[in-house]
Amino acid sequence: MRAYLDCLPCFLSQALRAARIATDDEKKIKNILDEVGMLLRDIPLTSSPPESGRLIYHKICEMTGNPDPYRKIKSESTKEALSLYPYLKGEVEKSEDRLFTAMKIAIAGNVIDSGANWDFDIRHDVNEVLNRDFAICDYGVFKKRLNESREILYIGDNAGECVFDRVLIEEMKKPTIYVVRSAPIINDATYEDALQAGINKVATIISSGMDGPGNILGICSEEFKTVYKNADFVISKGQGNYEALSNEEHPIFFLLKTKCQIIARDMGVTEGDIVLKGMPSRRKSEHGSQDPDE
Amino acid sequence: MRAYLDCLPCFLSQALRAARIATDDEKKIKNILDEVGMLLRDIPLTSSPPESGRLIYHKICEMTGNPDPYRKIKSESTKEALSLYPYLKGEVEKSEDRLFTAMKIAIAGNVIDSGANWDFDIRHDVNEVLNRDFAICDYGVFKKRLNESREILYIGDNAGECVFDRVLIEEMKKPTIYVVRSAPIINDATYEDALQAGINKVATIISSGMDGPGNILGICSEEFKTVYKNADFVISKGQGNYEALSNEEHPIFFLLKTKCQIIARDMGVTEGDIVLKGMPSRRKSEHGSQDPDE
Repeated sequence: MRAYLDCLPCFLSQALRAARIATDDEKKIKNILDEVGMLLRDIPLTSSPPESGRLIYHKICEMTGNPDPYRKIKSESTKEALSLYPYLKGEVEKSEDRLFTAMKIAIAGNVIDSGANWDFDIRHDVNEVLNRDFAICDYGVFKKRLNESREILYIGDNAGECVFDRVLIEEMKKPTIYVVRSAPIINDATYEDALQAGINKVATIISSGMDGPGNILGICSEEFKTVYKNADFVISKGQGNYEALSNEEHPIFFLLKTKCQIIARDMGVTEGDIVLKGMPSRRKSEHGSQDPDE
Repeated sequence: MRAYLDCLPCFLSQALRAARIATDDEKKIKNILDEVGMLLRDIPLTSSPPESGRLIYHKICEMTGNPDPYRKIKSESTKEALSLYPYLKGEVEKSEDRLFTAMKIAIAGNVIDSGANWDFDIRHDVNEVLNRDFAICDYGVFKKRLNESREILYIGDNAGECVFDRVLIEEMKKPTIYVVRSAPIINDATYEDALQAGINKVATIISSGMDGPGNILGICSEEFKTVYKNADFVISKGQGNYEALSNEEHPIFFLLKTKCQIIARDMGVTEGDIVLKGMPSRRKSEHGSQDPDE
């Protein structure tokens, strides 16, 4: 997905949020925003938002001398998620369609926040997602492809969320490769975070070679590109990966909650909607098929 | 009020909104946002938001060659408001406290938008404001000071809103000077807009000499500064004027709906709250008095 004009003010808001996590010094934060403001002219609308997020976030790390501002937040988020793991498994256990419930739980993980009342809020979010209908739900095709596939390539998103992904991976019952970022970027999951979440117990963890908030193939390692190209079943979690991969021709299922109006519009849904979308499918669906790779 | 860090992304959002009104050309809008991004470093946090709004808006006019992008929107907004004038007067007529109701109507005018379904929406907004309690309501002091005053200095805000101000001016029954911006700035009322709203029938219209979205005294004309200094009863409408005048020592009543979290926090209320606040009053209220100038 390319950037839209509305992404530009949002980049500045995201920079402010990240800068506040990296430092308490108001003057330093102002300087960071000034620098990010000047970066805008180097961001063409043809680039995808994670490319710009990467530039901006690196600027923040450079200016604060803090290479991983979200380290503590990420670790605590995973710890909290792990404490909910038995509850999440219980929800799958008591459901009629275990795979479908696990998929919704993976989406609920995409909603999590590291704020206060974590336990209360995330139980509420999980229930909210479990009771919500998908705006786009290519579940039939998803199940069919899953049954036919030999192996799953699962592209992760945030730390903490990994624990929820683990619940889905356990229900899919196929060999799985779980992809993390190669270096810290915002609260995205790195190898360390996936390990803390116990992903190593259910999948092989690999890095994409990408240090931006979304796996833009042009920047990923050759190794990852080969794995991606050869994968017959790909799940992509979250908005950043959607922004990075939505224009690729390779068949892929996007699993996310839309948290911004721009992405919702790009997907043809409403902000806040949950989505399981098999792509490329648009041209196909015009002919009555939802199949992402036929 | 000084600018806060959160104002910086908001400046860019406002620039995007204004640029879209000024031109349809996406490339031109991107260039404008790039330029506004570069302006950020020239905006110290010690400056008040209307000072920055002024710089940004002038940049947009300069780059689009359009000195008054909101001309049509303003004129239509006033026309729509005038069509509601009999309804607004009716609301005052049937109320128990005419002045109080007229004041709430003036605030409802601060909420208006130039979107679709104007008639429906504004009747809804007026009713919403009429049924809402003030978060800060210095009405007792307001009435007392109004009775004692010889003349009212009423600092207007947006076009369209003037019609609602007119309803309040008519209920205050005192000679009134109505202040407008000296040149077009966003959708703020200029002489032309106040005239279209019929303010000339109930008040003397003067310009502040200010071409920014809030009357920052340092930039206003000497003539206005003298009028302001000599005024014994001042009403200031809207957020822009609050941002510009909240640190001045001169007694003044701020009448507005808080439309952003930053201003709400500065006033000690919640976003969306309606406020009639007499200032300077904070130090006084610590001693149990709400009087703005004693």
